[in-house]
Amino acid sequence: MPKVSNKGKQMPESPIRKLVPYADIAKKKGNKVYHLNIGQPDIKTPEVALNAVKNADIRVLEYSHSAGFESYRTKLSQYYKSQGLPVDVQDIIITTGGSEALLFAMGSTMDVDDEIIIPEPFYANYNGFSTASGVKVVPVISTIDDGFALPPIAAFEKLITSKTKAILICNPGNPTGYLYSKEEIQQLAEIVKKHDLFLIADEVYREFIYDENDKHYSVMNVPGIEENAIMIDSVSKRYSMCGARIGCIVSKNKELMATAMKFAQARLSPPTFAQIASEAALETPQSYFTEVIEEYKERRDTLVSELNKIEGVKVATPKGAFYCIAQLPVKNADDFAQWLLESYHNNGETVMIAPAAGFYSTPNVGLNEVRIAYVLKKEDLVRSVQILKEALRVYNA
Amino acid sequence: MPKVSNKGKQMPESPIRKLVPYADIAKKKGNKVYHLNIGQPDIKTPEVALNAVKNADIRVLEYSHSAGFESYRTKLSQYYKSQGLPVDVQDIIITTGGSEALLFAMGSTMDVDDEIIIPEPFYANYNGFSTASGVKVVPVISTIDDGFALPPIAAFEKLITSKTKAILICNPGNPTGYLYSKEEIQQLAEIVKKHDLFLIADEVYREFIYDENDKHYSVMNVPGIEENAIMIDSVSKRYSMCGARIGCIVSKNKELMATAMKFAQARLSPPTFAQIASEAALETPQSYFTEVIEEYKERRDTLVSELNKIEGVKVATPKGAFYCIAQLPVKNADDFAQWLLESYHNNGETVMIAPAAGFYSTPNVGLNEVRIAYVLKKEDLVRSVQILKEALRVYNA
Ligand SMILES: Cc1ncc(COP(=O)(O)O)c(C=O)c1O
Ligand SMILES: Cc1ncc(COP(=O)(O)O)c(C=O)c1O
Repeated sequence: MPKVSNKGKQMPESPIRKLVPYADIAKKKGNKVYHLNIGQPDIKTPEVALNAVKNADIRVLEYSHSAGFESYRTKLSQYYKSQGLPVDVQDIIITTGGSEALLFAMGSTMDVDDEIIIPEPFYANYNGFSTASGVKVVPVISTIDDGFALPPIAAFEKLITSKTKAILICNPGNPTGYLYSKEEIQQLAEIVKKHDLFLIADEVYREFIYDENDKHYSVMNVPGIEENAIMIDSVSKRYSMCGARIGCIVSKNKELMATAMKFAQARLSPPTFAQIASEAALETPQSYFTEVIEEYKERRDTLVSELNKIEGVKVATPKGAFYCIAQLPVKNADDFAQWLLESYHNNGETVMIAPAAGFYSTPNVGLNEVRIAYVLKKEDLVRSVQILKEALRVYNA
Repeated sequence: MPKVSNKGKQMPESPIRKLVPYADIAKKKGNKVYHLNIGQPDIKTPEVALNAVKNADIRVLEYSHSAGFESYRTKLSQYYKSQGLPVDVQDIIITTGGSEALLFAMGSTMDVDDEIIIPEPFYANYNGFSTASGVKVVPVISTIDDGFALPPIAAFEKLITSKTKAILICNPGNPTGYLYSKEEIQQLAEIVKKHDLFLIADEVYREFIYDENDKHYSVMNVPGIEENAIMIDSVSKRYSMCGARIGCIVSKNKELMATAMKFAQARLSPPTFAQIASEAALETPQSYFTEVIEEYKERRDTLVSELNKIEGVKVATPKGAFYCIAQLPVKNADDFAQWLLESYHNNGETVMIAPAAGFYSTPNVGLNEVRIAYVLKKEDLVRSVQILKEALRVYNA
């Protein structure tokens, strides 16, 4: 019998995969499960995007240009400029989700056994893309005690070797909700310039910032690192259209873009319907975003204040995105998460949470932490935290 | 300045890329260019597929299951069964085009520096996917003199090393149009069983077979290689919906499918609109296919008989897909293809052809061959070959 590859064996499973059968059991028992574990927003997709697809007059559903519709790239460049990001049409390649943009970025910058430094906890699929690309993830730990701020520059420099090719950040962060300050981004800029590294910034949550005094600072805004900066973006969260599968890779580095383009040509083109929707989504009225951000801000505030009422729970208040990491008064959040689904219910209801260990690459870190996504209505969040509180009391008794 | 990866440098460019600027020049001069170089059919997409997207009632465009809609996989399994292929729901993972299915197949079966044997000439992007996966392509030459039949088994066995993990075939073939016989597939089955290899069969042109006595024989139909066989499929050509970006990877090997599923989970999901279209496309009436196949058959017959009228031209009559390889009475088809665009026109018209060297992995093979796609109307094909004939006369004078 032929054997699967070692790469395939090493491909990580999703951090919540082990829990799914238990969630199914809970549901079969008739219990309601509040999903605090997923990044799928319940927000409506802008009608202008959905209508564009309905009204598209297509006879032959053709491949598009491998870099995406030129009309879409042109408008997207205008969108970025309106947001203060100096992105030209030729700096953009449209990809099949931010996911594919991450794969192109890794493939274009790193060879097998090269190293990429990533502050952890990080988006779990960075592990998958790295494994698929044969690249080694070198984590640098950020801690809940520091609110997941950027680790000191010395911590990065200690990890840089001749194999290091890039630093990858997520800003604002999934799963931390941390928003890097201008100073932190500038510190990163210094390191990548000094060591000739790429700085890959996953900015798919750029618009989800909740405090008036906070401002997103993109890697595209840092003077002097034009050749180092690669931005990863996506329409998935911005317009609540995760199923479109449209994102992009953005850089001013022409050699990098020419290289990414070869990966893009091999897979022919990004999806056509989804590009139609994404191009139209650029016409989404500002009122949509104002409402959405207001809604998430309220959810965040509700979630954090409710969690803070539970004794022994520690939360790093997220400044952006729609996740937070909470430390629970349990030894092993994995066991607790399973117990919640398998053995617990409160009036026929329970919650599903994502154990945070899956977001760390260092073993045995974050064992008592969970990631909570606030993609549910406020009432549901309040009820979820109430269940969590009661469950913790029972579990620890 | 940071450097792109060696992998990125090695990523091949499309075989016709060099010619594109010359085609642009020809058009700027006001010449009409007949595109014999592309695999984008002009056939209408079935209305049932397009209407399903128009009529879909979507509020939140969500991620789908990473393996694709369960409803789609269920119907697709029924479709395969109706075609005589014993494919169950759990044997299918929906991918973003056959392209992604090829990437998942390579990633799941091969590690860096492992080897994959592919009869050449082959679909040029196999080179790209192999390079992206760090895998080495070991070509086995099939020749126009044999009509691109399967090379003798001894030729494969000579190439098998401890690094060989898979054999990849395209059936029917792009660019050859060759359809493997049942006997040829069985010979391949013997080798992969004997050497514990995977047999990856790219069957995206399965339905495009033009002679009554010819029948497609799928790797899914070979008893005894259930653990070795991996089928790659796509809706791109079957329903002329290349822009959907939907395909699938199919296998009965459970470990392989569990591994491919981890790659699928990392990229979250295939595109939602396109899955709606693809699921509905399964309702396409048989009359659509009958007409399409009849149309392609006529185009093929027209093209081959016209080409055969040119002195010095040799064609391997394609039995399937919509390409053929033609040997031209020129030394270097690359130069000739460029000259056609740059320096020639016949009453203001010229043709663009794909030099076949880009479909070979062995250097300096196929230099006097071109790939011609018959995705144009008959009249245009006749006119194209007339231009080609005149051009060859002038070029060789
Ligand atoms: C941080 C981060 N990056 C990238 C992605 C990929 O998103 P997509 O491929 O849908 O654009 C996600 C999705 O959840 C994410 O959270
Ligand atoms: C032989 C072959 N395999 C795979 C593909 C990939 O097609 P898609 O990704 O559109 O399914 C093509 C496209 O032309 C092809 O010719």
